[in-house]
Amino acid sequence: MDLAAAERDGPFIPGPRVEREGAASGPLAGLDFAVKDLYDVRGAVTTYGHPDWGRTHGEAVADAPVVSMLLEAGARLVGKTKTVELAYGLTGENIWHGTPRNPAAPGRFPGGSSCGSAAAVAAGLVDFAMGSDTGGSVRIPASYCGVYGIRPSWGALTLAGCCPLSPSFDTPGWFAKDAATLRRVGQVLLPAGCAELPKGPLLKVEEAWTIAEPALARALLPALEAVEKRLGAALPLRIAPEGLRTLYENFRWMQAAEAWASLGGWITRHQPVFGPGVAERFAAARDLPPELAAAGRRFRRSFQARLKGLLAGGAVLVYPTSPFPAPLLSASAAELQSVREMTMSVTAIAGLGGLPEVTVPVARVDGAPVGLSLVAAAGEDLGLLALAEALAADIAR
Amino acid sequence: MDLAAAERDGPFIPGPRVEREGAASGPLAGLDFAVKDLYDVRGAVTTYGHPDWGRTHGEAVADAPVVSMLLEAGARLVGKTKTVELAYGLTGENIWHGTPRNPAAPGRFPGGSSCGSAAAVAAGLVDFAMGSDTGGSVRIPASYCGVYGIRPSWGALTLAGCCPLSPSFDTPGWFAKDAATLRRVGQVLLPAGCAELPKGPLLKVEEAWTIAEPALARALLPALEAVEKRLGAALPLRIAPEGLRTLYENFRWMQAAEAWASLGGWITRHQPVFGPGVAERFAAARDLPPELAAAGRRFRRSFQARLKGLLAGGAVLVYPTSPFPAPLLSASAAELQSVREMTMSVTAIAGLGGLPEVTVPVARVDGAPVGLSLVAAAGEDLGLLALAEALAADIAR
Repeated sequence: MDLAAAERDGPFIPGPRVEREGAASGPLAGLDFAVKDLYDVRGAVTTYGHPDWGRTHGEAVADAPVVSMLLEAGARLVGKTKTVELAYGLTGENIWHGTPRNPAAPGRFPGGSSCGSAAAVAAGLVDFAMGSDTGGSVRIPASYCGVYGIRPSWGALTLAGCCPLSPSFDTPGWFAKDAATLRRVGQVLLPAGCAELPKGPLLKVEEAWTIAEPALARALLPALEAVEKRLGAALPLRIAPEGLRTLYENFRWMQAAEAWASLGGWITRHQPVFGPGVAERFAAARDLPPELAAAGRRFRRSFQARLKGLLAGGAVLVYPTSPFPAPLLSASAAELQSVREMTMSVTAIAGLGGLPEVTVPVARVDGAPVGLSLVAAAGEDLGLLALAEALAADIAR
Repeated sequence: MDLAAAERDGPFIPGPRVEREGAASGPLAGLDFAVKDLYDVRGAVTTYGHPDWGRTHGEAVADAPVVSMLLEAGARLVGKTKTVELAYGLTGENIWHGTPRNPAAPGRFPGGSSCGSAAAVAAGLVDFAMGSDTGGSVRIPASYCGVYGIRPSWGALTLAGCCPLSPSFDTPGWFAKDAATLRRVGQVLLPAGCAELPKGPLLKVEEAWTIAEPALARALLPALEAVEKRLGAALPLRIAPEGLRTLYENFRWMQAAEAWASLGGWITRHQPVFGPGVAERFAAARDLPPELAAAGRRFRRSFQARLKGLLAGGAVLVYPTSPFPAPLLSASAAELQSVREMTMSVTAIAGLGGLPEVTVPVARVDGAPVGLSLVAAAGEDLGLLALAEALAADIAR
């Protein structure tokens, strides 16, 4: 594949754009959107970030239902966006299609795996874009690119017609340039539910603030104060007395076991060449001792029960979406691995919990955007989107 | 495929048995189980009920996590069971592997799509067996074969390493010969949750009792009275003022759209030959007008909100699992289609709602078993299993 420079660092997959008009009217009329190239669009090849996947799967015969819902609501599809190969990575790198540039922080990674969707929204090329999130694949690129993003409650949206990574964590998710659009999309896609602002209390997850880069944590304080004006002074919460890194480890064991159960057959048959990091992760998934996956499942049970108790009645967790701004493109593999581990220690909170998380772009550090995350009980997605919109208005004031 | 008669009407897929020892100890030690041949077991080909699926997918490289959990809990895997091709049918027929005989009602269908798992339990060949349920594929064969069955809350168990049909409805599920075993398996597989008996009230879904064959409804009355002794007199409930058939239609539109989104690509590429009914259903799924799928999604939203209100606080729905006992093997295609439509008008209640449903084998009609269903709010699976066990003890007394 010999790509033009514009394709190599753009957000869309190379080649002719996949485009579709939406319904003439509807709640999303007038909005342009793009979808990560793991959503099927009828007549187009879904590459899942790898040419071999596209070659061995051929043209999609149907739209993923989520794509249908957006088109029926009047939105216009203007392209399919790049993803990390098989969605198994957080930097946004793709050796086949090229890594999208981060429009909000040149010289830094866009974040992944939904890299193209975040970059397309940040560049103003679309009003919103669909991604997917297993271990942070919407939340991290949203924070890195300075856009709004949501990972909904696990199971709230169907993943029919989408490629799987780790089904018990996979969720669709989306990005938007403003909180009102993020919420409008949610009103179309999410199940009916309470749309009132969560009552609180606001719980400040101490460990996530502690491991964040100090300048990043400081930069988020004004936004934290804005949330406190709505929900009351934040109460400090230690969410993981066993250590935040325990969340990362248990998450990655389960994620790896499910990733190999879902994709190991295809990988074994077709022996695709993977880029740096992705190859190692799938090899580790293949070789994962089964007792670690079992330990992960046990841990998730108890952690979910703990979160359910904490969040019942309207509580909201607040913490930095990522401990770091986007890493530099020149970062070493070791640096990226360290960033990955600390980042996933935080993203694993909502991942293990199956909880909805909205990230709000509220500050910049070292010339790069950073987001503040709000997390609620499962099913409280619409209330969380309302809170994000109210917060955006408060901050703009 | 030229099968010996024993293979043709037995519950297991033809060929050498897929067997695996479980852990030396654990909560399921001493129990033998089988899995529907849509669960991956490392080293075995998953056929999904069709030789072309097996041929084009090859040997599984990993166990589905649900299989791992059972083995780790000490259960012993003794075989993979037959399924309707790609799980898209309720009779249990399979032209490739043969239709398992119904051990509880010779001359009648075993029910599907998890036909082999229900038949293996009914024949006493295993202590429990895993199936899966999208539109009734555990509940119906359980009722037809006279065994206990559960379709858990949607999303409660991971489907990693399982073949998809319609992801927003698909759930793992299982069969057991007695209520205690059904519950023991649930304690291993289900997320932590409340295990207390639901408080009630008991809601008798009028439409489901009305469309049931009168003799079947009468046969269930003693069991209904036993439930009433625990939860109080049943209150009559009209669950679908728009007509129960509306549930069937909206369910099947969404099911079809997701089935084609999930499997249409494979079917288009490989052009598999399907048995009667299955071929027609996939053709209809391919040709489904998109506005029907959209109508189904809208209907599900409002129906889910209605059920959530009804079931909050511990209510339990009660109705015949199926309006009919198992159809005769000699039934005409038109008869089977009519049975299918009326049956799915009932199974769509929990299907659309994402609700847990336990079916309890409590009576026989015309020499065939029939089950009584208990349904609770999503997440109340363990309480429902406790209720089924208490009820079984009451009835045995």
